[in-house]
Amino acid sequence: MPSQLAPVTLPAIQRPVRAELDGVFDELGRIVRSDFPLIEDVNMHLLRIKGKLFRPTLLLLAARAVGRLSRPKITLGATVELIHLATLVHDDSVDHSVLRRGQPTLNALFSHQVAVIMGDYLYSRAIIELVNLNDLEPLRVMARVTNEMTVGEMRELEAHDALDYGEDAYAALIEAKTASLMAGACEVGAVDAAATQRAALRRYGLQLGMAFQITDDVLDYTESERTTGKPSGLDLKEHKITLPLIAAVPRMTAVERERVRGLMTDAEPQDESVADVMAIVHARGGVEAARARAAGYAERAAAELEALAPSPARDALADCLTYAVERRS
Amino acid sequence: MPSQLAPVTLPAIQRPVRAELDGVFDELGRIVRSDFPLIEDVNMHLLRIKGKLFRPTLLLLAARAVGRLSRPKITLGATVELIHLATLVHDDSVDHSVLRRGQPTLNALFSHQVAVIMGDYLYSRAIIELVNLNDLEPLRVMARVTNEMTVGEMRELEAHDALDYGEDAYAALIEAKTASLMAGACEVGAVDAAATQRAALRRYGLQLGMAFQITDDVLDYTESERTTGKPSGLDLKEHKITLPLIAAVPRMTAVERERVRGLMTDAEPQDESVADVMAIVHARGGVEAARARAAGYAERAAAELEALAPSPARDALADCLTYAVERRS
Repeated sequence: MPSQLAPVTLPAIQRPVRAELDGVFDELGRIVRSDFPLIEDVNMHLLRIKGKLFRPTLLLLAARAVGRLSRPKITLGATVELIHLATLVHDDSVDHSVLRRGQPTLNALFSHQVAVIMGDYLYSRAIIELVNLNDLEPLRVMARVTNEMTVGEMRELEAHDALDYGEDAYAALIEAKTASLMAGACEVGAVDAAATQRAALRRYGLQLGMAFQITDDVLDYTESERTTGKPSGLDLKEHKITLPLIAAVPRMTAVERERVRGLMTDAEPQDESVADVMAIVHARGGVEAARARAAGYAERAAAELEALAPSPARDALADCLTYAVERRS
Repeated sequence: MPSQLAPVTLPAIQRPVRAELDGVFDELGRIVRSDFPLIEDVNMHLLRIKGKLFRPTLLLLAARAVGRLSRPKITLGATVELIHLATLVHDDSVDHSVLRRGQPTLNALFSHQVAVIMGDYLYSRAIIELVNLNDLEPLRVMARVTNEMTVGEMRELEAHDALDYGEDAYAALIEAKTASLMAGACEVGAVDAAATQRAALRRYGLQLGMAFQITDDVLDYTESERTTGKPSGLDLKEHKITLPLIAAVPRMTAVERERVRGLMTDAEPQDESVADVMAIVHARGGVEAARARAAGYAERAAAELEALAPSPARDALADCLTYAVERRS
C-alpha cells in the first residue's frame, strides 16, 4: 500500500528519465517559439514558471518501463505538457485566477484576451507537433483526452453551491478534468507496446489521476499557507464542492448542514465562516474519508503495474503513487 | 474581373453541392453531441444559429471541381465549420460581443466561462473527427491553419489605437485571421488531388479570403444598419484599424489626422465623432481604395482557377469571388 512507503521526492522519481526530461524542456521551447513579439513575451513567462513536468515524467517512465523510450517520446512528453499548460491558461481565465505556481497568471499579467488566445495557440501548436510525428495513435489518445477535459471543465461549473452534489458526480468531474490526461500520458508512453501493457498503463494513470486530484482537494483543507499559517480553504471560499465536504455531509447534524448552506449562499463568505465549515468537515471525518479514497485509488493503480516486468522505471511509477497521495503541495 | 459579373446569391453558388451541404449539417449535429446537459443546451443554441456554411461550401466545391467529392469530404466540411465556430465563440468572448448573426453570443447567453470551455470543446471534437478519418494530411492542414488563426487573433489585439498601423500589418492580420481557414478549406477539399491542383486551390482560397475580409471591413463603413439607417462604424467605435482607414490616412490633412487621433484616444467615442471620421475616410478615398484591393485579390484568385478543368463546380468557385466582394452583409 503506497501510504506505507517512505515519502519520496519528485526529483528521485524522475531519475530514470532525467536526461529525457531535459529534452522535453528543450522541445517545449522549440515548439512554442513564434516570430510574433507578443507571443514570445508570453512564452518567456510560461517557460520561466515551468512546472514539475509530472505528466511528461509519467509518459517517459511508462515508455521506459515497456522498453519503448524512443526519441519521439520526448516530443510526445512536450505535447502532453503543452496541452496541460493550455488547459491551465484557460482555467485561470475562466476562474479569473491571479496566481498560479506563485506567479501571476496570463490573464492577470497580460489580459483575459491574451489568455484565451494563448491557450488556443499552445493547444494548436501541440496538435501540429503530434501530426508531425506521423502517427495517428498518440493523436487519437490526446484528442479524446483533451475533449474529456473540456467536459470536466463544464462539470466543474456545476459543482458549486449545492449540498446535494454527490460523490459520483465528483468522481466523473475529476476523472474528466485531471485523471484523463494522466491516463493519456501513460497510455501514449506505451502506445507502441503490447496492447495489454498499454491498457494497464492507461488504467494505472487513470487511478493515479483520481488519487492525485483527491489529494489536491484534501490539501486545501489541511495545508497551511505560508502567509497565514492556516489552511487556505480556497475551494470553500469559491463554493467548490470537493470530496472532503461531500464525504462529511451525510454525517453532519442538521445544524451543521445549515452552516454549510449559509456559507454556500454567501457570495463572499467571511474567513470565520470558512474556518467553521472546515472544522466541521474535519470533525465529521471528511478529510479522513477522502484520504482513504485516494489511498484506494493508489492501491488499484499499483496493482496495474503487475502487468509490467520489474525495472527501475516500474519502481518509479510505483513511487509516483506515493508522491501523489503524500505530497504536501 | 469578378466585379463585372452579375450579382450572385449563396444558394445559387451552393447548388452543385446542395445535398452534401445538408450532409455537413447532419454531421455537425452528430459530432458535437454530448450526454452532458449543459453542453447539449449550448449545442442547441449553436445549431439553431447555423451560419451560411461558406467554408464547407468552398471545401465541397473544391472537391467536386477536382473530381474528389467522396463521403469523408462531408465530414471534413463539418470539421472546418466546427473550427470556424470554435474561433467565433472564443472571438466573441475575447471581444465581449453580445450579438453574433443577430443572436446572443454564448458569453452573453450563458457566461464567459461557458464560452471559453465550449470553444475548446468544439475544437477538440473537430480534431477527434479528423483523427477518425485516418488520414494525416487534412489534420496537418487544419492544425497549421488553426494555429495561424490564433496568431491572427494576437495580431488583432495590437491593431488598435495606432495611426501608424500599416497595410502590411493589416494584410498579415487578415491573412492569419480569415484567409488561412478559407485556404485550408479549399486545400483540404483537394487534399487527395494532384499536387498542382491542391496548391492552386490553396492559393485561390487565400486570395478569396483576403478579398472576403477586406469586403467585410469595407461593409462596416458603407452598410446601413436596419435600426439606425446609418453605417455602424463599429470597428472605428472599437478602435479597430482596417483597410479603409489605413488607405485614407496618407491622403488626410494634418487637421483630419488629428480628428482621427482624437477618436482613437477617446475610450468611448461619440457617434458624431465616428460619423465625422467615416466621412473623412470616404472623402479621402479609403473605401474606394479598399474595394480596389479586394477586387485585385479576387482577380488573382480567379486566375488560380485556370489550373482546373471547366465544370459547374469551378464556375461556382468563380461565383464565390463575386459573392465575396459584392455581398452586402
